[in-house]
Parts: sequence; C-alpha cells; structure tokens
Amino acid sequence: MAAVVFRHFHHCVPLLLPAPHSLPSLSPLCSIPLPSSRPRTRAFSVSSSSSHASSPMDHSQKFMEFPFVSAPHRDLMVDLVSMIETRLDSQLGPDTLPPDVKYYHNQSGTAQGTLHSRSGLSSSKVDFILGSWLHCNLPTGGALNITSISAYLKASTDAPNFLIELIRSSPTSLVLILDLPPRKDLILHSEYLKTFYEDTRLDSLRQTLFKLPEVQLYFSPQLFIRCVISPTAIVIKIDTDAAGAGRIEEIIKDHISSAAKEALRIWLDQCACGERTVGEEERTYLEKRDELIKKRTIEIDLEKSLPRLFGPDVANRVIGVLREIYAV
Amino acid sequence: MAAVVFRHFHHCVPLLLPAPHSLPSLSPLCSIPLPSSRPRTRAFSVSSSSSHASSPMDHSQKFMEFPFVSAPHRDLMVDLVSMIETRLDSQLGPDTLPPDVKYYHNQSGTAQGTLHSRSGLSSSKVDFILGSWLHCNLPTGGALNITSISAYLKASTDAPNFLIELIRSSPTSLVLILDLPPRKDLILHSEYLKTFYEDTRLDSLRQTLFKLPEVQLYFSPQLFIRCVISPTAIVIKIDTDAAGAGRIEEIIKDHISSAAKEALRIWLDQCACGERTVGEEERTYLEKRDELIKKRTIEIDLEKSLPRLFGPDVANRVIGVLREIYAV
Repeated sequence: MAAVVFRHFHHCVPLLLPAPHSLPSLSPLCSIPLPSSRPRTRAFSVSSSSSHASSPMDHSQKFMEFPFVSAPHRDLMVDLVSMIETRLDSQLGPDTLPPDVKYYHNQSGTAQGTLHSRSGLSSSKVDFILGSWLHCNLPTGGALNITSISAYLKASTDAPNFLIELIRSSPTSLVLILDLPPRKDLILHSEYLKTFYEDTRLDSLRQTLFKLPEVQLYFSPQLFIRCVISPTAIVIKIDTDAAGAGRIEEIIKDHISSAAKEALRIWLDQCACGERTVGEEERTYLEKRDELIKKRTIEIDLEKSLPRLFGPDVANRVIGVLREIYAV
Repeated sequence: MAAVVFRHFHHCVPLLLPAPHSLPSLSPLCSIPLPSSRPRTRAFSVSSSSSHASSPMDHSQKFMEFPFVSAPHRDLMVDLVSMIETRLDSQLGPDTLPPDVKYYHNQSGTAQGTLHSRSGLSSSKVDFILGSWLHCNLPTGGALNITSISAYLKASTDAPNFLIELIRSSPTSLVLILDLPPRKDLILHSEYLKTFYEDTRLDSLRQTLFKLPEVQLYFSPQLFIRCVISPTAIVIKIDTDAAGAGRIEEIIKDHISSAAKEALRIWLDQCACGERTVGEEERTYLEKRDELIKKRTIEIDLEKSLPRLFGPDVANRVIGVLREIYAV
C-alpha cells in the first residue's frame, strides 16, 4: 500500500468529499453489502476519541481482516498476502509498525486505515512489503474502499517491483492497478524489457481482461504515475451500472483474481527469487531512481490526501513512518 | 514516416495480406471514395514493370498528393507538412532523396509508397523531417492506407520529437498515433515531464478525443513501441461500423485535425524552436538513446514488413536510405 493506496486520492477525494471540517459524522460505517464468506470478527466499533488509535487494543491482525470489502475482494487480497508471505517468509522480518500506524482513523471515525509492513532480511533481495486497506465514508452515503499490496526490491537486483491496488468508490465501480513496475529505462535496456515483460507474457493477462465488455482503460490524472508503470500494466476501470454490484464481484472472482495471482507468481519466480547481476554503477542508478519514485509518490499522493481524510496529526504520523520504511 | 509508418505493419499485414508471392494483381487501386476537395492531379497509373520506380518521371511532389485518402485526411496531412515547412523552412535543406525512394512500388503495382525527407541545416536543432504515405491493395477488395509525419531533433537539444501517423485498413476504421515522444527517462527528469507534458497541457488533447464514443485505446502489440511514447500520447482506434465511413471523416475534420495541429504547434514552439541547454555528458546520453530507438524501429517494423509488401529489392533500397537518414 500506502503510498500506492493514495495514488488516486487526489482524483477521488476532491470529487467525493467535502473538506474535512465539514465531513458529516456518518455512522454506521460499512456501506457495501458483504456477502461474507469469512466471519467479520472484531467488527469495527469506532471511538470518536483520538486516543483510540493509540489504545492498547491488538491491531496486529486488523490488516488481514479487510472488513469493509466484499468476499471476493477480501479473498483475493488475503490470498495474495498469503502467497507472498508463504513464499518469502524466511526472508522477511516481523511487522514492527507502531499500533497507531498499523491501524489509524480520523477523529470523527468516518475514515480508517491499516498499514502492514515487513522488511527483507539482509540476505534477501526484498527491500520491504507493504499492505494496506483504507475505508472512508462518503457524504453521499456510500464509501470509498481501497486495498493494496506493494513489494519493493533492493538495489542488489534490478528486477521489477510488484503492485496491486483495488479502488472502489461505489458498489458498481472498480479501478484496478496491477503491475510489475520497471526499475530501469526500458528504451536503454531492451534485454530487461524482453526478460521481464516479453518472455513472461505478462501482456496476455491484460489482453484477457480487456476482452470483458465492462473493462475500460483508466488514465491516472497524474502523468508521473503513468510514467512509473510498465508497458504491460493493467490500469483499468470497470463500471457495471447496468448489471449492478454482483457483476463486479463476479469479475473480481472469475477474472481479476487469476490475473493478479499469475502476475504475482511471475514476480515471485522471476523477480523476488530470480538471479540478477548488478554492478556498482548500476546499483547507484537503481538507488537514485527508486528513491525518486518513492519521494514523488509521497509528495503527489499522501501529502495531499492523507491530511484531508485523517487530519494533520494522524497523516503526519503515518507519512512519517512511511518515510522511514521508504528511506526517503 | 517511414519507420514510423510501418510500426503497425507487423500487426496489420499478417492479418490482411497473404504472402507477397500470392498477392493478387488487383486493380484499379484507390478503394476509398474520395469526396475530393483538391483535384487529384497526376492520378496514379502504375506500371507493372519494376523499371517504373527508377523512370525519369518527376516524383518530387507525389508525397504531397496523398492520392488514396479522403479529403479530410489529405487536407490534415498537407496542412501539417505546410505548418512544419513554413515555420522551419529557413532551417531545412532540400529533399535530396533519389527518385526511386521518393516514390516506390512493388512489381505487381498493388503496393506503392512515397518518402519525403528534409535535413536540418547545421545551425538548426532539427535533425530531419520525414513524411510518407503508403497504399496497399488488400485481397479482400479494400486497401490499407498509412500516412505519417515525424520530426527528429538533434542532440544539441533534449526536447521531444514529433510524430503523427494515421492508419486506415477500411473506410470505417482508423488508428491514430499522435505524440511528442520524450528523449529522456521521465522518472529521472521530472523537470522535463513538467516542461513538455504538464505545462503544455498536452493531455487535454487526449482527453478531448476520448470524449467521443467511437474512440478506444489502441495497444501496439510491440511492447517497445509502448515504451517509446509519452504519457500524453494519443494512441487510439476508431471504429464507426454503425455510422459508416462518413463519421470517420467527420471525426478527422472536426476533432483529430485540431488536436494534431495544436500538438504540432506546441512542438514547433516549445521543442523545435525552444531554448534548452545540453551538457556534453547529456549529449552522449541523448545520442545513444535516440540511436537505440531508431535502430529498434527499423528492426521491428521496416525489416519485417517492407519486404513482404514490396519485395526484397525495393525494401532494401528504401531501408538503406532510411538507415542513412537515421545514421544507424
């Protein structure tokens, strides 16, 4: 997540939300019907006190609950996290985030989020894994739900990172970003393009999704974000106004799930666990390029959107921790 | 053109054409009705003799005739060439291409093409301008028509190049590529992204075209081509099966024409005639990156498609001249 989760807030938030001071104190939360296949344990009961976020409650598992999204959506996210953690478990340290960053919310309780992070051990090529969900009540009566997972590699490999993000601003709409963002200029490095994007046949996943009549391309309003993604990136918008919310859940279950798992499998095999040789000069180049992307991601997304949703104190706390993880 | 013109041949040709040895000798040519606003002077009369291409006939103006496309399509191309040549005339040398490259055709006369090129004088930032049209009869009875203009700058500036290409494989379909392809990695050079793509508001042209219900995104099957374009590139496919050919011509006249002229105006003002400082190290980087793009373009497009359409002799002649222009 995190930085990733908010990439599109600048787009969604101004349209959907009034300024924070005028946010209505809506409750109960959870506006999307949950045809739940998993029990909603620890169902959310928010306190309007800001002390809630730093209470001694155990929020260590809250990220994996994905309590506000549909069963197919939650199942997909849980499966992807499990795939990563099963395969890379021995390479990853524990999630040591402070409780009030693992789970945070705004004063009125209309917005809440989680952050999950595990760093790669010194022997691993994985720099860190980030996961997140975010839920925000909308003045219109609906809710915005964003879930994401991202995985960043160290400069000891030049292999691509991994990213998935699902953004729901209504039960009949979905924006999906699924990509292995490259870490090099693909014009200068044609072998890299061939190895990670042509030979892996990643584009076939995009082609398959584009056969669905509901699928449209989504253009991020931020040109920088369009530059970060690969030529096989799946960046799509699905609207099923006519067929309703059921169709979106069907698409997640029958199409997006398999595409996301296949992309992740390719990333785990070829990138996180693949062998690549990186010279000293190239390592410096990768460090610089990686850092620029992380910095711009925080500037473009988090610093504009988080304060609006959560107020400056919570936003500063979460962004501060993310800057530490990102080392920027 | 040229290299540019053929970018999508690998996609179109296998679908539309049998292998050259089985090409039917179709005639007459010109399958698209021409609601002509300009007289079709020097109407095409092809000789099946291969000596035709090297005959003493004057082909110097053939490029500007665009004899096989509709009036709105031809008017657009002529206007764009005129805009470039009017603005840059004092910076450009004459078109010195040999006659049998200025105009060329296959033995059976079912495929013909033109090439127009002017190099920038030593004082100019323009490296060269290329224009082209290509016409090819299809075994199905229709015709493939491709017209393009591209403009490349020298390494004394890092400003983007210019590119427009219109591909018609039937009277009711059009693929348009309109872009200022960047010459640097936009992740590493955020000032470049801001100057040429954000501040110029190039994306508003794309947004306007995407408001038309007939407009869809076009994905080049070649990932490399997707990497070459900018984040504001207009790469679209328009199908008007229901409304027929008239609607495509209306879209070219009312929408594509203004977008293309505005993009070209931005390129002329900000890129071809803008002031940029380029250091020695950066110059070496630009030369390398420019060269890689030109080389790959020839490999991917021309070397695969031209021999199929024109036979090896004509293809080698045209590609040889393009290699000289491209200096690769």
